[in-house]
Amino acid sequence: MQELTLAKTAAWLKECEDAYILIHRSPDGDCIGAGYALAEMLHQLGKRAVVLCNDEIPKQYQFMLPEEDGTAAHFEPQCIIAVDVADAKLLGSSVQEHYGSRVDLCIDHHVSNVPYAKARLLDGAASAACEILYRLSRILPVKMTDHMALCLYTGMATDTGCFQYDNAGPETHRAVAALMEMCPDVRYAWINREMFAVKSFGRLQLDKLLIDHMERYLNDKCILICVSQEFLRKFQVDEAELEGIAGFPLQVEGAEIGITMKEKEPGKFRISMRSADKVNVSAICQRLGGGGHVKAAGCQVCGTADEVRNILLDAVQKEWSNA
Amino acid sequence: MQELTLAKTAAWLKECEDAYILIHRSPDGDCIGAGYALAEMLHQLGKRAVVLCNDEIPKQYQFMLPEEDGTAAHFEPQCIIAVDVADAKLLGSSVQEHYGSRVDLCIDHHVSNVPYAKARLLDGAASAACEILYRLSRILPVKMTDHMALCLYTGMATDTGCFQYDNAGPETHRAVAALMEMCPDVRYAWINREMFAVKSFGRLQLDKLLIDHMERYLNDKCILICVSQEFLRKFQVDEAELEGIAGFPLQVEGAEIGITMKEKEPGKFRISMRSADKVNVSAICQRLGGGGHVKAAGCQVCGTADEVRNILLDAVQKEWSNA
Repeated sequence: MQELTLAKTAAWLKECEDAYILIHRSPDGDCIGAGYALAEMLHQLGKRAVVLCNDEIPKQYQFMLPEEDGTAAHFEPQCIIAVDVADAKLLGSSVQEHYGSRVDLCIDHHVSNVPYAKARLLDGAASAACEILYRLSRILPVKMTDHMALCLYTGMATDTGCFQYDNAGPETHRAVAALMEMCPDVRYAWINREMFAVKSFGRLQLDKLLIDHMERYLNDKCILICVSQEFLRKFQVDEAELEGIAGFPLQVEGAEIGITMKEKEPGKFRISMRSADKVNVSAICQRLGGGGHVKAAGCQVCGTADEVRNILLDAVQKEWSNA
Repeated sequence: MQELTLAKTAAWLKECEDAYILIHRSPDGDCIGAGYALAEMLHQLGKRAVVLCNDEIPKQYQFMLPEEDGTAAHFEPQCIIAVDVADAKLLGSSVQEHYGSRVDLCIDHHVSNVPYAKARLLDGAASAACEILYRLSRILPVKMTDHMALCLYTGMATDTGCFQYDNAGPETHRAVAALMEMCPDVRYAWINREMFAVKSFGRLQLDKLLIDHMERYLNDKCILICVSQEFLRKFQVDEAELEGIAGFPLQVEGAEIGITMKEKEPGKFRISMRSADKVNVSAICQRLGGGGHVKAAGCQVCGTADEVRNILLDAVQKEWSNA
């Protein structure tokens, strides 16, 4: 696999034709923003390009879809580009099956990126794939449009929790400043309200339940929420409303580790761990067969709720003594 | 009253001696950050300066206090500077009584600023007083220290809701980028976690209560929360925990106007109004004897909870028909 610089990647994009742009399954603000911003850049360069995703674009992100998204133009891809996809597995089964082994170029910001493409532009220090796409837009002969600015801003805002986390660095803030100056008509504050401030009445009811069911361990340094299938049935919670609850436990004052256990099917839990500051949750999750970032990681553990909880707390306890 | 430019203000600060820096009552992240950043700049210029506030600095903001805050050095002020204070009334009774009519220089970013000082540096387009102080730090012969960067960042972050609202413009983001580059050791993400993410267990219990007591009007476009003295007694809520609840109603999906009624003493309600997008709540509050910004305003209304609620909804209804 070939590692590309920003300039080499720009040259590559100028040469490519008929591109399929792949983004990851369960698409989020960053991969959607990066995908559609790249598609528009390629269109401006006179190329055909479409964004392909294994899953439907969730309702809350559909404001990023262009009016004319090019999917009407059916064509066979001559090149395949993946953005914000750390591993071919994350393309989702159907997209992976068709294109997973044929990716020509991967543009990503995950330090955990697994080499699966022929060439790669990787910057683990970038806050978001959209920050890298912004840099490409500055050296390619393309014009910054309101739609591109909207996409790039949304990706950087969502991946940094509205510039809250420590991945939001000076380059992120400078990119945002430049987007705001070039495209002052984009409703940046509206994007933030939709992405960060607003909750449905259903979600607010769920918040109440979650507050009541928070479990405290390690002198309240570790907060755990267990959403079992029984919990979903008993309180009639729609699984779709659980999106984004991984950050919920960490809002407790003094909490260092937040754990969310979701029972995806009977006896099989998907675990999300978040660290406020001191603990490396990636190390904990790796020990349990998962992985991720130092402050946000995940894994899967099988067993009853009690068994899984014990396994998790045991692993956390070990890492905690090292912290 | 004399209107000063940035350069004139810098020249003024170079000339001044023995300064008292006044910030507003119920101090927030911006006035505290601006006050202590200015004090440090004056110290670097070889001057005596202390920050004076009518109220105690709340616990959550005490990380901005310098190790040596200069209050030990008692001196009579030769000049009085107010920062982030839109009206002498907002100094609080004791500070206003002693110094309210003697303010030499006012540095502020509130468009509603009332001329009460001999000279004024006002920029209503700045996100925060700290953004103006940042600009002054760039043209004064002072060094950016970690403590100054921490103060200035906190002010800009808190007044923009972590860069969420539309007062966070390109200049704000550029100032933040510069602070991060000059002072990379400041724990910016930690500040954000403390300011925006963290809630006490008591506050989480209050959230549950607030969710249960949200009232919906105007087809759910207007969400109202009434915190009466009876409410406080019944649910044993400590008034200190109510800080920051003004934004609570607006988190409801689709809400355009959020209203919080707090009964400060029997029959006397302090009202906060927030607008998501379309409605000018400053106009509504002005009609009721208050004022503020277009999207965040307040007033006081006397009566029973039912009477006050009716007065508010009537005023909102009128503005809503105009929106």
